[in-house]
Amino acid sequence: MLKLDQDLFALYEEARDVDFLLYGGDEMATDPTASAALEYARQNRDVFLDRLFELLRFPSISTQVENAVDVEKAADWLVNYLKEIGFSEAQKYSTAGHPLVYAEWLEAGPSFPTLLVYGHYDVQPVDPLDLWHKPPFEPSVDGDVLYGRGASDDKGQMMALLAALEAYLRTSGCLPLNVKVLLEGEEEILSPNMGPFLAEHNRQLACNAVLICDDSILDPQTPVITYGLRGNCYMEVRVSGPSRDLHSGSFGGAVDNPFNVLVRMLAALQDGKTHKVLIPGFYDRVREIDEAERALLAAYPASEEQTLRLTGAPALAGEQGYRLIEWTSVRPTLDIHGIPGGFTGEGKKTVIPAWAAAKVSMRLVPDQDPDEIQVLFENAMRSIAPPTVKLEFKCLGKARPAVIDYRCPAAQAVAEAYRRGFGVQPVYTRTGGSIAVVAEMMQYLGAPVIMAGLGLPDDQIHAPNERFYLPNFYRGIETFIHYYNILSTTTLS
Amino acid sequence: MLKLDQDLFALYEEARDVDFLLYGGDEMATDPTASAALEYARQNRDVFLDRLFELLRFPSISTQVENAVDVEKAADWLVNYLKEIGFSEAQKYSTAGHPLVYAEWLEAGPSFPTLLVYGHYDVQPVDPLDLWHKPPFEPSVDGDVLYGRGASDDKGQMMALLAALEAYLRTSGCLPLNVKVLLEGEEEILSPNMGPFLAEHNRQLACNAVLICDDSILDPQTPVITYGLRGNCYMEVRVSGPSRDLHSGSFGGAVDNPFNVLVRMLAALQDGKTHKVLIPGFYDRVREIDEAERALLAAYPASEEQTLRLTGAPALAGEQGYRLIEWTSVRPTLDIHGIPGGFTGEGKKTVIPAWAAAKVSMRLVPDQDPDEIQVLFENAMRSIAPPTVKLEFKCLGKARPAVIDYRCPAAQAVAEAYRRGFGVQPVYTRTGGSIAVVAEMMQYLGAPVIMAGLGLPDDQIHAPNERFYLPNFYRGIETFIHYYNILSTTTLS
Repeated sequence: MLKLDQDLFALYEEARDVDFLLYGGDEMATDPTASAALEYARQNRDVFLDRLFELLRFPSISTQVENAVDVEKAADWLVNYLKEIGFSEAQKYSTAGHPLVYAEWLEAGPSFPTLLVYGHYDVQPVDPLDLWHKPPFEPSVDGDVLYGRGASDDKGQMMALLAALEAYLRTSGCLPLNVKVLLEGEEEILSPNMGPFLAEHNRQLACNAVLICDDSILDPQTPVITYGLRGNCYMEVRVSGPSRDLHSGSFGGAVDNPFNVLVRMLAALQDGKTHKVLIPGFYDRVREIDEAERALLAAYPASEEQTLRLTGAPALAGEQGYRLIEWTSVRPTLDIHGIPGGFTGEGKKTVIPAWAAAKVSMRLVPDQDPDEIQVLFENAMRSIAPPTVKLEFKCLGKARPAVIDYRCPAAQAVAEAYRRGFGVQPVYTRTGGSIAVVAEMMQYLGAPVIMAGLGLPDDQIHAPNERFYLPNFYRGIETFIHYYNILSTTTLS
Repeated sequence: MLKLDQDLFALYEEARDVDFLLYGGDEMATDPTASAALEYARQNRDVFLDRLFELLRFPSISTQVENAVDVEKAADWLVNYLKEIGFSEAQKYSTAGHPLVYAEWLEAGPSFPTLLVYGHYDVQPVDPLDLWHKPPFEPSVDGDVLYGRGASDDKGQMMALLAALEAYLRTSGCLPLNVKVLLEGEEEILSPNMGPFLAEHNRQLACNAVLICDDSILDPQTPVITYGLRGNCYMEVRVSGPSRDLHSGSFGGAVDNPFNVLVRMLAALQDGKTHKVLIPGFYDRVREIDEAERALLAAYPASEEQTLRLTGAPALAGEQGYRLIEWTSVRPTLDIHGIPGGFTGEGKKTVIPAWAAAKVSMRLVPDQDPDEIQVLFENAMRSIAPPTVKLEFKCLGKARPAVIDYRCPAAQAVAEAYRRGFGVQPVYTRTGGSIAVVAEMMQYLGAPVIMAGLGLPDDQIHAPNERFYLPNFYRGIETFIHYYNILSTTTLS
């Protein structure tokens, strides 16, 4: 695996030899405000990095109740930071879960557009902890790479958005457009409280466009505009058999083992050959892409070889009739994430457990509806459950799939900002992950939601040794300085 | 579940109203030595119980390395106890794992038979700990029931064997026959070092019969002579996919999830309708029982209704073409005990894990060979594994199945001892559990191995709140006093 990473980083090193840091040349000279911000960003990279270190030290794992206080502390830190750089009214908003951080700077006035920037300061759990080379919440830099939980997803990317604001405010004392900042502490648990917050504050949050930075680009030479993402329906099913754990010697052969039943049921949901999900009705609402979109996606330079190297998988396997880029973007999936119950420690225990459970998530694509998928999943499981067990279901989270119009002006402005910040044109794709908030922002704010990313495909997000390629951090800050500048003179609906 | 137990205990209460404590009447009066031992046993029940408490307090979990020191302490305690009651040369024998305790009293001389008594002082793990009403290693008594890990399996039953010896030694200063005592600390991990020990010490251990007390009887009115037990082949299979954990959003649909693969493979090993194991060749060596044995087993008073009440299972399910008593005795099984890997904590994590594993054990019957079954299991798994994963196998333990001749004199003497100790005739059965040592003792010592039990089917061995029905403890001590007495005048081969 080290070999693979070294290969990839060799590619990145080559990429660095090219001078990416072409800041647009002539056209930028005509805008002294942006030029000053860019100059500030280049002079203060160490300051930005130190500040990111501070934020990374909070173990703000939103799914673990014991870390609630750390999530809160990270929110407080962000409020203070925003106040310091000029968002004097920055504040926390309580929710039923972790707080939101909100701030606004509206002094550009009504003749300028209003942009809402969004990021999240919560992170994924860190297990298996023993695979981390360094403690996940003690960030460290090795060469051009920053290590730590949240380095890429999303603290590093979020701080690039904010550092670009800082660069304007610290140099000219103002921003080129009106900006609202909304930072969430529950993205990794599928934003359960964002919908209600957006519904309640939709007038306060009104804007012409939303910019989210929480995605990966293909490599440092190939920024990506993501115009769609998959939704999610995350279920836990519990199969209960005997009322207590039994000895498999005494009762094995007479009492159906909940694990035996569960694996039979989970196997029945998948076709191991076609890699299709066998839940009846699962594909009914899946929107097939048209030829134009198929061609657009085909231009995305993803190769099976590269994916094999990135993942270390012995072979790839995807849905029959589709190709790699489609497998991870426009096709739905079913993945098992864990099978709790019984004995999983060292050694052996001969137990027929009272219950076994499975954590199963399904990635969804337009126009699948997570509520409907939950019902289909439960019905499918119930229809194949033998009379030897009882089933219980729990929905652990849902997110709607979303597609945005990549031809809208706010999105095209990102393309130009990437061109200036990274020196190359971006490619277009739809991503496989789920950001619940995107569909909700579209629904409640009525504004196009633009997803820009600075991560790399091997940032190991959600895994041990998460990392962030620092040149992307610095180029990202400059890209967003360009974006704020370009958007200020763009006509938005 | 409490309801079920109360029902069962109501049955036991009824049973207690009958006067079981008929100690054979006239025939015993002719043997003052045995009568004195019985009288001692009745007077010293509290002493025996206190001593059992001491032993139960050692958390001698043999499968957990962190408890090795506790296993050792339990062995030391037993050595001291045996010395105290008259086995002056009692000592520990080191093995590659946990020690054996050995003692002998041969003063009856060559004209009397030699009996080897066997028990084990190691116990199963205690998880899930939160389901124990009291700490597993702080034994407690509630009415007639003793609670604690090892109370039934096997510390309580083992101490009944030893207390019967104590009763003779403390009264007449001698035993009615020659006795060798062999106590093991690795039974719960399938006795990996017993075979080598028996091979090396087979002359020292030479005997005319072996008595093991590590089994359950049907209820307090129905003692059982167990003349066969199942073997075991306990495997762990690890399915590895990507070289590291992946985000199911980014890679879901393109990288085969090791859990998805594993459940498909495990499901392919079982027929959910016939409940047959689908590993090719699995049944090839299974010895079908003859009509006489089928009738003998059919006389065993096991009912589906009783098993449903005992286990709390919504329904039973066993191999097509066989009946309940056969499912758990003369037919082999496949049980999954745990599926480690991925994320099993609270909440959700959207991970495609680098690997997933399964702990699978197969109960075996004569003449299945655990070594051959391991090969068949591995071959079956390999033959259905897709190219997206790699497999690794680990054998966690093996035990040969065994059958003994229930018509032999040493076994018939147990029937008479039960009749005197419990007041009723025993029934005959073959048990579903595995005691590796039985087959090995037959092989190395050439003596019949008699399995007598004092446990009850709902003792919750291997599970939370393990318990031991104390009247069985006291009746058991007296039963073994009778047994030693009867055997002393029985002609053994």
